[in-house]
Amino acid sequence: MIVTLLTDFGEFYPGVMKGVILKVNPKATIVDITHSIEPQNILQGAFLLYHSYRFFPNAVHIAVVDPGVGGEREALAFECRNHIFMAPNNGIAYPSAVDDGVKSVWRIDEDKTSKVTGELSNTFHGRDVFAPAGAYASIGLLKEVVEPYYGEIVELEIFDYNVEGGNVRCRVVFVDRFGNAVTNLRAKDVDCRFLIFDGVKIPVVRCYEDVERGEPLALIGSFGTLELSVRDGSFAGEFGVKSNDEIEIQMI
Amino acid sequence: MIVTLLTDFGEFYPGVMKGVILKVNPKATIVDITHSIEPQNILQGAFLLYHSYRFFPNAVHIAVVDPGVGGEREALAFECRNHIFMAPNNGIAYPSAVDDGVKSVWRIDEDKTSKVTGELSNTFHGRDVFAPAGAYASIGLLKEVVEPYYGEIVELEIFDYNVEGGNVRCRVVFVDRFGNAVTNLRAKDVDCRFLIFDGVKIPVVRCYEDVERGEPLALIGSFGTLELSVRDGSFAGEFGVKSNDEIEIQMI
Amino acid sequence: MIVTLLTDFGEFYPGVMKGVILKVNPKATIVDITHSIEPQNILQGAFLLYHSYRFFPNAVHIAVVDPGVGGEREALAFECRNHIFMAPNNGIAYPSAVDDGVKSVWRIDEDKTSKVTGELSNTFHGRDVFAPAGAYASIGLLKEVVEPYYGEIVELEIFDYNVEGGNVRCRVVFVDRFGNAVTNLRAKDVDCRFLIFDGVKIPVVRCYEDVERGEPLALIGSFGTLELSVRDGSFAGEFGVKSNDEIEIQMI
Repeated sequence: MIVTLLTDFGEFYPGVMKGVILKVNPKATIVDITHSIEPQNILQGAFLLYHSYRFFPNAVHIAVVDPGVGGEREALAFECRNHIFMAPNNGIAYPSAVDDGVKSVWRIDEDKTSKVTGELSNTFHGRDVFAPAGAYASIGLLKEVVEPYYGEIVELEIFDYNVEGGNVRCRVVFVDRFGNAVTNLRAKDVDCRFLIFDGVKIPVVRCYEDVERGEPLALIGSFGTLELSVRDGSFAGEFGVKSNDEIEIQMI
Repeated sequence: MIVTLLTDFGEFYPGVMKGVILKVNPKATIVDITHSIEPQNILQGAFLLYHSYRFFPNAVHIAVVDPGVGGEREALAFECRNHIFMAPNNGIAYPSAVDDGVKSVWRIDEDKTSKVTGELSNTFHGRDVFAPAGAYASIGLLKEVVEPYYGEIVELEIFDYNVEGGNVRCRVVFVDRFGNAVTNLRAKDVDCRFLIFDGVKIPVVRCYEDVERGEPLALIGSFGTLELSVRDGSFAGEFGVKSNDEIEIQMI
Repeated sequence: MIVTLLTDFGEFYPGVMKGVILKVNPKATIVDITHSIEPQNILQGAFLLYHSYRFFPNAVHIAVVDPGVGGEREALAFECRNHIFMAPNNGIAYPSAVDDGVKSVWRIDEDKTSKVTGELSNTFHGRDVFAPAGAYASIGLLKEVVEPYYGEIVELEIFDYNVEGGNVRCRVVFVDRFGNAVTNLRAKDVDCRFLIFDGVKIPVVRCYEDVERGEPLALIGSFGTLELSVRDGSFAGEFGVKSNDEIEIQMI
């Protein structure tokens, strides 16, 4: 079965998680979604998980952006209609789980998962909690390492933006390698041929080639949300926009 | 079957492509060649694909550096003697396909591939076109998603350099993590014990240890082309050279 | 069988190594531990290999940080109790091999391994030597590409630090993506409630949440060694500490 990983761990730590998963399930197909979530940016993690899990066949998704590691927050497993999500109870998996359809929510038992690694660190539950739990789930033995959870579930709204007339306040949730600023403003709320951002009038087009090289543009990107770009350039670089910025746009 | 990925996508997007591939072919062995091609540097993509595909057993190679995504350019599949290449028609796969021996060239039908993802974005054909097509090819069903292509094929020459007497104009096609400047000048055109670059006399040696630490050197590297290095240092950093620079060298 | 890779190669080169491995063993499960070892930092490579190999089931581990590539140093295979390590003879695999329990040490025969790639470069033995050797080992045919080795084995001590009373000189072996400074000072030598670093009194705590946001802290991290952190911040950034620094700490 497929086990995906989405974290803010960067390098090295994900490799260790894979060792742990393969110890429990040597046949696991492990796929990195990304390990470059902005450190501790739970919203970005939630947004990117939501927009990637659906392209996978049924899978176990381990999503760890976890500023509260080692503290009070629970480690949860969301058993859903097609997918299983493993994540700290901080909202990162919430939008995806709800979207897929939650069947049951479980608390991962650290004392059981840590038997796989022989350790229970206070800084790396990716290794000692989530990887073992995900691996057990991938062989149909989730129940071995969880117990029912009746507590509060932290919710998170990734499409939290404001549209009043033509005025929009939304968020840059992801700046990709090309400098495209991906916002959380959904296509259904974009209905204009131009928008104004930072005093600049920007055409809303269909694809990059609809403007000249070096010109700014806006389009509905692969997330189904508004993206701000510069053709063959970097919007984020030229307009000084970065991930997690709240921005104001006028649709005209 | 093996499916390789070579893109300028950086993080996240390749993970989504893998989900799509596994949806069609759960048994695919997916290998990242690199996702760090300099944004939209088609020549670098072509050079690195050419120097990596040959080390794989028969495989499907998806190569996407695609400034024209969503516009007029076609998405092609090159069926070759041992390998299949999937790429936009911008030259990136051309040198590899010719090297392996082209049998047929096909146009990928976006309307068919996008049934796998349920979407056809104008910015991410890696997900909606190339990943599904590559996955179909990896299970022997390429014909399900392509049609014959009789149009123009964009050609690209990766060994485009000029040697006149001892004077060479060639290109830095790749700067690796160590700061080695990999050029496209082939070994067969390097016949000297020293060269002059930027006024500095540099010995042409066999391996790094042939010079003292911190000294510049030139050698025939693993690409079979001239590389400029500093032992235990960064040539690119010290000489201010970067990827895609055209450089002049005197062989003496 | 699992084949892991740990190198300082960054991008691209590891992809080529995977092609070579799959040519010999199409069923290999290849796992990247990391390719971001600080260029030519053998100690960091040794430290991270030591703290990751143990979390894998029996596997072949290829570890290449190799400033002497193409020169005199031998390429070795350490056949151990549970794992096999492939590495240049510069100490990188030594602590792991000893920890697992060395059974035999072999010299990899470059003339044999390079038959797989058809090349023997002087700069990329990851491709022409270690990948083929690792692949052969992963199908139980290590002996096809090695010969007995009776020469000197380069040793390396990763826990090389000094404790005198409360005064410690140890090393920052790894700075992770969050800016945590991972030292090589083992838990058993940390016995205090506070420490002084760079004139700042820092509490030794159990987890990040034990201090306020933005405050520095020290704890025993997932490596079982002392780590210096700033909660929701970067210790390395704020204190100007970087990988490979020797640091002084007072335990009080």
